[in-house]
Amino acid sequence: MKRVLVATGGGDCPGLNAVIRAVVKRAEQERDWEVIGSIESFNGILREPTEIRVLDEKAVAGIHVQGGTIIGSTNKGGPFAWPIKNKDGSWDYADRSDEMIRKLQYLGVDAVISVGGDGSQRISQGLFEKGLNVIGVPKTIDNDLLATDFTFGFQSAVQVATEAVDKLVTTAASHNRVLVLEVMGRNAGWIALHAAIAGGAEVCLVPEIPYDLNKILEKLKSRYSRGKGNAIVVVSEGAMPKGGEVVGVKSTEVGYEHIRLGGIAHKLSYDLKEAGFEADMRETVLGHLQRGGVPVAYDRILASQFGVKAFEMVLKGEFGKMVAYRHPDIIAVPLTEALDRPNFVNPDCSLVRTARGLGISFGD
Amino acid sequence: MKRVLVATGGGDCPGLNAVIRAVVKRAEQERDWEVIGSIESFNGILREPTEIRVLDEKAVAGIHVQGGTIIGSTNKGGPFAWPIKNKDGSWDYADRSDEMIRKLQYLGVDAVISVGGDGSQRISQGLFEKGLNVIGVPKTIDNDLLATDFTFGFQSAVQVATEAVDKLVTTAASHNRVLVLEVMGRNAGWIALHAAIAGGAEVCLVPEIPYDLNKILEKLKSRYSRGKGNAIVVVSEGAMPKGGEVVGVKSTEVGYEHIRLGGIAHKLSYDLKEAGFEADMRETVLGHLQRGGVPVAYDRILASQFGVKAFEMVLKGEFGKMVAYRHPDIIAVPLTEALDRPNFVNPDCSLVRTARGLGISFGD
Amino acid sequence: MKRVLVATGGGDCPGLNAVIRAVVKRAEQERDWEVIGSIESFNGILREPTEIRVLDEKAVAGIHVQGGTIIGSTNKGGPFAWPIKNKDGSWDYADRSDEMIRKLQYLGVDAVISVGGDGSQRISQGLFEKGLNVIGVPKTIDNDLLATDFTFGFQSAVQVATEAVDKLVTTAASHNRVLVLEVMGRNAGWIALHAAIAGGAEVCLVPEIPYDLNKILEKLKSRYSRGKGNAIVVVSEGAMPKGGEVVGVKSTEVGYEHIRLGGIAHKLSYDLKEAGFEADMRETVLGHLQRGGVPVAYDRILASQFGVKAFEMVLKGEFGKMVAYRHPDIIAVPLTEALDRPNFVNPDCSLVRTARGLGISFGD
Amino acid sequence: MKRVLVATGGGDCPGLNAVIRAVVKRAEQERDWEVIGSIESFNGILREPTEIRVLDEKAVAGIHVQGGTIIGSTNKGGPFAWPIKNKDGSWDYADRSDEMIRKLQYLGVDAVISVGGDGSQRISQGLFEKGLNVIGVPKTIDNDLLATDFTFGFQSAVQVATEAVDKLVTTAASHNRVLVLEVMGRNAGWIALHAAIAGGAEVCLVPEIPYDLNKILEKLKSRYSRGKGNAIVVVSEGAMPKGGEVVGVKSTEVGYEHIRLGGIAHKLSYDLKEAGFEADMRETVLGHLQRGGVPVAYDRILASQFGVKAFEMVLKGEFGKMVAYRHPDIIAVPLTEALDRPNFVNPDCSLVRTARGLGISFGD
Repeated sequence: MKRVLVATGGGDCPGLNAVIRAVVKRAEQERDWEVIGSIESFNGILREPTEIRVLDEKAVAGIHVQGGTIIGSTNKGGPFAWPIKNKDGSWDYADRSDEMIRKLQYLGVDAVISVGGDGSQRISQGLFEKGLNVIGVPKTIDNDLLATDFTFGFQSAVQVATEAVDKLVTTAASHNRVLVLEVMGRNAGWIALHAAIAGGAEVCLVPEIPYDLNKILEKLKSRYSRGKGNAIVVVSEGAMPKGGEVVGVKSTEVGYEHIRLGGIAHKLSYDLKEAGFEADMRETVLGHLQRGGVPVAYDRILASQFGVKAFEMVLKGEFGKMVAYRHPDIIAVPLTEALDRPNFVNPDCSLVRTARGLGISFGD
Repeated sequence: MKRVLVATGGGDCPGLNAVIRAVVKRAEQERDWEVIGSIESFNGILREPTEIRVLDEKAVAGIHVQGGTIIGSTNKGGPFAWPIKNKDGSWDYADRSDEMIRKLQYLGVDAVISVGGDGSQRISQGLFEKGLNVIGVPKTIDNDLLATDFTFGFQSAVQVATEAVDKLVTTAASHNRVLVLEVMGRNAGWIALHAAIAGGAEVCLVPEIPYDLNKILEKLKSRYSRGKGNAIVVVSEGAMPKGGEVVGVKSTEVGYEHIRLGGIAHKLSYDLKEAGFEADMRETVLGHLQRGGVPVAYDRILASQFGVKAFEMVLKGEFGKMVAYRHPDIIAVPLTEALDRPNFVNPDCSLVRTARGLGISFGD
Repeated sequence: MKRVLVATGGGDCPGLNAVIRAVVKRAEQERDWEVIGSIESFNGILREPTEIRVLDEKAVAGIHVQGGTIIGSTNKGGPFAWPIKNKDGSWDYADRSDEMIRKLQYLGVDAVISVGGDGSQRISQGLFEKGLNVIGVPKTIDNDLLATDFTFGFQSAVQVATEAVDKLVTTAASHNRVLVLEVMGRNAGWIALHAAIAGGAEVCLVPEIPYDLNKILEKLKSRYSRGKGNAIVVVSEGAMPKGGEVVGVKSTEVGYEHIRLGGIAHKLSYDLKEAGFEADMRETVLGHLQRGGVPVAYDRILASQFGVKAFEMVLKGEFGKMVAYRHPDIIAVPLTEALDRPNFVNPDCSLVRTARGLGISFGD
Repeated sequence: MKRVLVATGGGDCPGLNAVIRAVVKRAEQERDWEVIGSIESFNGILREPTEIRVLDEKAVAGIHVQGGTIIGSTNKGGPFAWPIKNKDGSWDYADRSDEMIRKLQYLGVDAVISVGGDGSQRISQGLFEKGLNVIGVPKTIDNDLLATDFTFGFQSAVQVATEAVDKLVTTAASHNRVLVLEVMGRNAGWIALHAAIAGGAEVCLVPEIPYDLNKILEKLKSRYSRGKGNAIVVVSEGAMPKGGEVVGVKSTEVGYEHIRLGGIAHKLSYDLKEAGFEADMRETVLGHLQRGGVPVAYDRILASQFGVKAFEMVLKGEFGKMVAYRHPDIIAVPLTEALDRPNFVNPDCSLVRTARGLGISFGD
């Protein structure tokens, strides 16, 4: 019996369970393969006792419609930097990668499918370089990888953000308000850009196009001068003023303290008021609502394609590679190549031109 | 030709447009009646030039599926306390109620249907006492009126809050987190209570049952001791600790400044951490997402019933009253009675008992 | 250890799992109680080997958001009329009720919570009369029980039907079509009536108000004469022409053969065309889409209330009764009383008056 | 002032209004351009009096979230084959294309943007050959055009079909039934294939892979033998048995008569029963529910891109071409090329391999 181990690392992402299910369903068609899952990314392997779960058809029945991941996830640590708390409360980090590879051998694992974001894939590459048979599956709602046309989870996040805009539009219009919606995306503005177009926003702020507060004021005032006392502003958590620095990217990572300082949505309202803008403004921070819930059909399909392909790469021995979507095919790209090429919003791309064509201002 | 004027006041509430449409549709069945709408509650009547819109079948076609209100709304001022800005920036308030009644006579208005919350209905009662033919339609997503079994907008808010819990559950489970969801409701805990039951929360905090931080800690720790490192806490914006005071009710009313101080969700996380609770926590403040968007079928139906009934009360001359739902009938209750009896969560009511039966802790 | 057995019988109904979960959650708060479930209604008890499943907290985790029932259901047979196939292919029915009661004693069952429609509750009453400690929980998406303000599952069915109307409206308007939507409800028109109001239909046909084809033609033609070449007709599966007989009730019960004969939606289109109506018409039969899927918050709450109350009735020994909702309380009513009083649409009720007030024709 | 005329032809498709809005929004950025819409495809131009509507920013406000098309659509006739009813009730068809081109000149129309399916685009090409400045925008929920990666409307249809599968799954499981869902797609199986993967069906039947009834029986029976008495079968309206002929494609085009004969879903159930399959089966025909309603974010974005691009092609004089999506760009392809190359499911494509990898049977 051969064994493939699946691990899911990093933030929540709609479609993770569909990947797991697809790997298991495909593996069940081969006589000699069994799938096991490591609980909370690679941490399950390193813990004592080892936390491993057998993943058979029954374990994955119906999970493709569920958000989250049935084998848990984590943003913390990993085999190359395992956190160890010192007596004085400070932290040290240990390299336990060799130990982990030994444990995998002991568990009879022939290949590892590592589903995760850039952090997880750097670990995958590190393990591959140490001889482990690793295959990567990209996981990010931010869609910030050039190697693949789209990542699963992204369309679900866009759909949630768009439905939020749809809801805010009626409040904005009924109350003559400017409503600011802060969405995720880290340093990439894709979610904001898509939601602004789909929802029909007036202003869209993305990290790749630093904004000028005066241009935003101009846009809002020109709208007011035409008798419309309301507007929707979609702002990416990583957006920033020209010459300024990002205040928001961390907004979803830290709790109470950070909110006190305010994310980019609150900063923007504050700055607009300071600049003399008198309209009534409100901020909505979507936060984790973008990461959870039932994946849209698009993401379930893409995730299923990734899962089936990943297992077929195991069969073929194509290790050190990551699955990717190049319409209409699912291909394999070297992990190194995937990690080196982020996908940011090009200010001259088709989508930005569409947004400008719809009259959306980027504040530039 | 007789005229009925419709005004919608106060915060956004799914179903407002269905009320307007129902009044118009019912009025079109009478030969001699015309419906007009005052823009932004009663303000449209007092403005120069007067802002009035004729509401015929075409104007209301299909609006019952839309959130917001096609005639606008406002939380500010009103005929009894019209804000006037002094030169030094301070505000005075003028009583323009007599002027408004004269203007309504001038416009040939025979009756007024005033859709609004308690603030608006106090104005309705004041105008009725001055001789105006007023009929009230209650509007609150908070469901805090004893006179009616339910108000429209409430079930839509509960549905939105429940879907938010559904989304957070998967993140909580995948990441071993405690997720705190702050919902609206002012001083009534109904939205929190309903969403906690429907979504399957572990803790529900409502204004009517002040909480003890230690009891919440106990509940969370007992859950952790059984191996579940995650939980959902639904907290009403008006919830407060025993002996404490409300910090959150205003969270949806003011912008940047208030968020810096933190609403109740952020306060709760902060207090739990201060008390030594070590789990990873995140807060989500639903805010205006609860008030906008397509109303659920239940609210469209209730709002339609209110609208038809209100116009029929106009025909019968039942003024100074408010429509109300007493299953399965729609009745008329005196405005004074309606205003005097708020509907708060009774700690011994059937729903609270159900919640406790499901193992939900109120932190008491 | 005491045991309560739960069984779910009859057609699918959103909220069934929330009832099961609530019973289990409430029972876990008592020291000495265990909940078991009989697979496929009472059939699980009678089968060899007995099909019983222990229902603990883990078994019911998260099930309240799922449609269907985790212990299965069935419309066939039952202890009083167990089907036995003869050699010649014909069927006989055996009374196995005494055997079932003996088996329950053998299993150590102290009380039975029977969740089901009128068929199941007649069985419950029969078993109660034979000495079994039975408590009934009503289950019908049709809302046709006078004993309770509402049944769970109904609002979910109404929401699905309303969303279907919302979708059809745009097609009707874009293509100048008359679209006929057939919804469930058996002999009660509640789903049709609610969906017609919530969706904004022009015609609503219910079993309780037999229609006159000419009146429908009149309504449609008067609409056309005002320049609107489209309309939505919501028709209950049990609707029928004056003096005619029901053709549709069975449409969801039998398969291919019946559809060949056509349900009421197809009959109506056909009859309208035969009567010379020239507009383009299309029919949509919602069918099982109304019964499945994630329950709306309202139904999850009502179902949870029923489940907690049912178990508390077990503790108090209130047998031979059914839980019911009388706003805002959950009460117990004798099974006999519940079975004797169906809840049909009263042509003079508030909802029908609202519908007429909105200009909806019942074809009468 | 220059004028561009927009026409929308053929069946309903989520995203049509987003195209119209994008053309108008983009045109408003040019000084000299005005957009007008022809009511009910090109028919509005040919009617007496001409039915034309000015499309300005107000006319298109908020329409991108609505299904259907605000300027109406039609499947009937067109300038090259205008239907004329003879006295004996038979029909003749007249070529009114020259007349239409003259009328467009008379109306001062400088360019035409024709949004429609293959029928409409053949008309576009015909008009272009006669000298009209035409630009095509593809419209089909079937996604059956090779020239473009995706068409708008398709993802919305897939989402609706997938949600239907999600709902049916719980009924299938609770009642041990085989549920057959018939979806649209004409001669292309894309909707069925996507929904089957996203929803997790057991069987998927598409026109491109004729099925063998025995293989389906085998699949269902093997599932039953493993103790699962339920299954979901997604069948494309154009699916057919090996050596058989299509029975279903017309199912959405004709009314009562056709349903009597049964679409492919009913035929399949019937054939399975005739072949001795004893399980309980039910059929659901999604029909027009797939074409209406609020478009998903994906379709709104793609439609907006198409609209902006189409107007920019007008500015550049790129006539006789159609907009198309080649990720991540929006390009222009000659109409003739677009019309000649349909996009059918290749039995060896990545998606089919994924489906097989998930254990989905195509009955081959």
